[in-house]
Amino acid sequence: MSDTPSLAASTALSDVLTLAATAAPALAETSPRDRARALVAVADRLDESADELFVIAVAETGLAEGRLRGEMRRTTWQLRLFAEVVAEGSYLDARIDDADPDYVVGPRPDVRRVNVPVGPILVFAASNFPFAFSVAGGDTAAALAAGNPVIVKAHEGHPRLSRATARIVTDALASAGLPDGVFALIESRDDAVAALRDERVRAASFTGSTSAGRALADIAASRPSPIPFYGELGSVNPVFVTEAALQENPADIAEGYVTSVSGSCGQLCTKPGFLFVPSHTPIAETIIEAAAKVGEHSELTPGVTAGYARRRDTITGRGDVTTLVPGSVRVDDDGFGWATPTFVVTSVDALVSGRDALLDEAFGPLSVIVEYDDAAALPELAERLFPGNLTATVHAASGEDTPELAALVRSLMRVSGRVLFGGWPTGVSVTAAMQHGGPYPAATVDSTSVGTAAIGRFLRSVAYQNAPQSMLPPPLRDDNPWHIPQRRSPKGLSSLWGSLTGRY
Amino acid sequence: MSDTPSLAASTALSDVLTLAATAAPALAETSPRDRARALVAVADRLDESADELFVIAVAETGLAEGRLRGEMRRTTWQLRLFAEVVAEGSYLDARIDDADPDYVVGPRPDVRRVNVPVGPILVFAASNFPFAFSVAGGDTAAALAAGNPVIVKAHEGHPRLSRATARIVTDALASAGLPDGVFALIESRDDAVAALRDERVRAASFTGSTSAGRALADIAASRPSPIPFYGELGSVNPVFVTEAALQENPADIAEGYVTSVSGSCGQLCTKPGFLFVPSHTPIAETIIEAAAKVGEHSELTPGVTAGYARRRDTITGRGDVTTLVPGSVRVDDDGFGWATPTFVVTSVDALVSGRDALLDEAFGPLSVIVEYDDAAALPELAERLFPGNLTATVHAASGEDTPELAALVRSLMRVSGRVLFGGWPTGVSVTAAMQHGGPYPAATVDSTSVGTAAIGRFLRSVAYQNAPQSMLPPPLRDDNPWHIPQRRSPKGLSSLWGSLTGRY
Repeated sequence: MSDTPSLAASTALSDVLTLAATAAPALAETSPRDRARALVAVADRLDESADELFVIAVAETGLAEGRLRGEMRRTTWQLRLFAEVVAEGSYLDARIDDADPDYVVGPRPDVRRVNVPVGPILVFAASNFPFAFSVAGGDTAAALAAGNPVIVKAHEGHPRLSRATARIVTDALASAGLPDGVFALIESRDDAVAALRDERVRAASFTGSTSAGRALADIAASRPSPIPFYGELGSVNPVFVTEAALQENPADIAEGYVTSVSGSCGQLCTKPGFLFVPSHTPIAETIIEAAAKVGEHSELTPGVTAGYARRRDTITGRGDVTTLVPGSVRVDDDGFGWATPTFVVTSVDALVSGRDALLDEAFGPLSVIVEYDDAAALPELAERLFPGNLTATVHAASGEDTPELAALVRSLMRVSGRVLFGGWPTGVSVTAAMQHGGPYPAATVDSTSVGTAAIGRFLRSVAYQNAPQSMLPPPLRDDNPWHIPQRRSPKGLSSLWGSLTGRY
Repeated sequence: MSDTPSLAASTALSDVLTLAATAAPALAETSPRDRARALVAVADRLDESADELFVIAVAETGLAEGRLRGEMRRTTWQLRLFAEVVAEGSYLDARIDDADPDYVVGPRPDVRRVNVPVGPILVFAASNFPFAFSVAGGDTAAALAAGNPVIVKAHEGHPRLSRATARIVTDALASAGLPDGVFALIESRDDAVAALRDERVRAASFTGSTSAGRALADIAASRPSPIPFYGELGSVNPVFVTEAALQENPADIAEGYVTSVSGSCGQLCTKPGFLFVPSHTPIAETIIEAAAKVGEHSELTPGVTAGYARRRDTITGRGDVTTLVPGSVRVDDDGFGWATPTFVVTSVDALVSGRDALLDEAFGPLSVIVEYDDAAALPELAERLFPGNLTATVHAASGEDTPELAALVRSLMRVSGRVLFGGWPTGVSVTAAMQHGGPYPAATVDSTSVGTAAIGRFLRSVAYQNAPQSMLPPPLRDDNPWHIPQRRSPKGLSSLWGSLTGRY
């Protein structure tokens, strides 16, 4: 694409980038059918190798095998669902304007527009989902589905699993007939930063900490040719419980909360970091009882443990915070971190005055219970304290429909990507309507990294004007060889306009 | 949205931002019907006031009244077309996942996703389209259509026209019942930069020079909460003429080229800056003859004239460039610039070796004719020399269908937003399939600023999980009160998946 000298930190990286750039045009022209087959081939190979992968994953991440099996189901389903989306073809958003000599602003040419892949994508794998947000995870699936070569930066937390998964992906894509260079794994941070700066990389995605993510986003934005950086940097996922909900169902709420905070040792981007409850509610006892039943869970990496221990010390050490469940965090003789959940209680006033120190995410099993007196103040408070989150949750009683609740929901919609009614934000289904994003810092670009809409992040649009049929790409041809949806604007739209004026 | 102190440079700006932020939630909840009516009201008022606006526009911009009348038709059509798109509602991309206890990766909740406005938008008006890319232009129409308040930074080139247009827009929106604060005009650069830094502004758009646009893009990216900056910074719109095309139609190509370069004094973002023709083609005489018929045309601003004169001197002063038509540029006693078109000739070798100096856009009626010997080298050359353009054009003979031509078209698709077959890139129709964007520097974010897809730039997506009907926004309700398209993923998708596997 460009003859700008590569800033590659290693010869290996230079080869990876050259291969990816060379593969890009060929991959972009594969049929949806061939690309769908390749995605399914990856899913099939992962399923076949699952048992050997679980052994490595358990050893490297400390996550429970049951949890990892669920994550693998999600990962392979994701690939298969994206294959379906590719084959169906509406993600191409093919639009055809018929030529119209009488168009209202002057003769209109034949214009046809379609989504095309942007080019090689750099995916930074996450630590906390070694399958679903790692080498063969959602970003890889979305980028390949869109028709782009993928270069994955392995997460340091699971290097052996990353290499084993990469071998499977590479073999499966090759066996499905995709060109060399459509997939590669890189491991060093220097290589990753060099790749992010390289002109051949056309977009990047990331899931991790706000500090690391922002530093990378700034690199992407300061390139001679800036590229989109889809970073998911941090979210505290506040939960708001109404008085009526708590009266209706105190035990379920308390137990569900503890389970959601503790699952995967709190190392989830949608862990509820704050629970707003009316003051003087008798929920503390149930939380203490439920927390007592949670065993010690290992943490992902020494870095996560160190960061979590610091954050926990800061919060529990504050004078305006009361520790309800102290919990624990320790490092064992092998250097692995282990934790049990910590719950603290504070007031709205303390949260507002101590916000800079209290509001940051704690990446681990700690959550803050905030007692409120005035439900009518919550909507404004929610927007002010939580300007960017992946999720926000309300627990209301069945049939509860007050103006305060409606106002709170509208506020939460403005500052988060997904608003839940009941239930808990951990557990994100991979579907057509899922949204996993939100205003900064939940996402650096407010789009989704989960669900079928994620494919759109790795596409751009191109229009062809007055092209002969033989020069058009298949999705824009009149004979529509891929059988994808085409939206046609017929000649005479200006009179159609006239006839439709009556509808509003 | 936030209590971050405003960096407003003036009290007036602070009021503008507060009003816009206050209006945002109310505007976001207006029905498509009401918003469509408001857009049509603006179009109607502009039509009513057109004659008085043309008088100001001619005086301030030096553009011909005929051209301005055409631009006004486009501007009001744009508003009416966007009204239609809003009322139709597929831009909301409403998706509904039915709950599914048997979903393949675990029980699926009811999830519903819809596009919502992002919040106040800062629009930097352009100099060269005082109607269509200015106060009531495409970005304003798109942002309002999406449901966002708009703050327009007036271009210094037409301040009186900007104020007159802003009064019309403000009155029309108020008469249509939209809340106060949905539209405002600001004029100082300091205010514009302060607004770009203000947390209440959620996205910005810009059309202008690469240097100014990049500086603003960098400010948007370096905010504590970065925002999307949709900048259109520069494009040289190369045109490639095949040997066969030139034999078939030399006079039409030469004359069309001169007309496209000279129109609006070359001050168009899609002006063809480079024309590639086979060496030793007898096209020079026709270009000289056609250029001789072009009268002197006034330029937009003293700044444009100074920049163009410098650029023209640089290009015509080079030893590896031959001046075919010298043309002229001068400043009159009133400080207005005037120009006639300049055409120069160079070789592919000179272009490659002198690329840094030769390849930048000349914003005025200058174009470079590049003689080539090897058609097979053009695809690689095009990608290397022109990595980001709004348009690229090929002129081929009727029925010409060579591998070189197909390869060139594929290359041009990768580096430009619109690929034309015959014709000239100036003149951009406002339609569903139009794409006016491209890789950097054509656009800072590769999306479109023209056509109905432009609305998507000012939207984000939100999902509601297990929401009661009364808490859902209208486009996601089962009773669908706005009668917009809803895409539903029915329960049992996993079996649907099974039944569809056979298709690839």
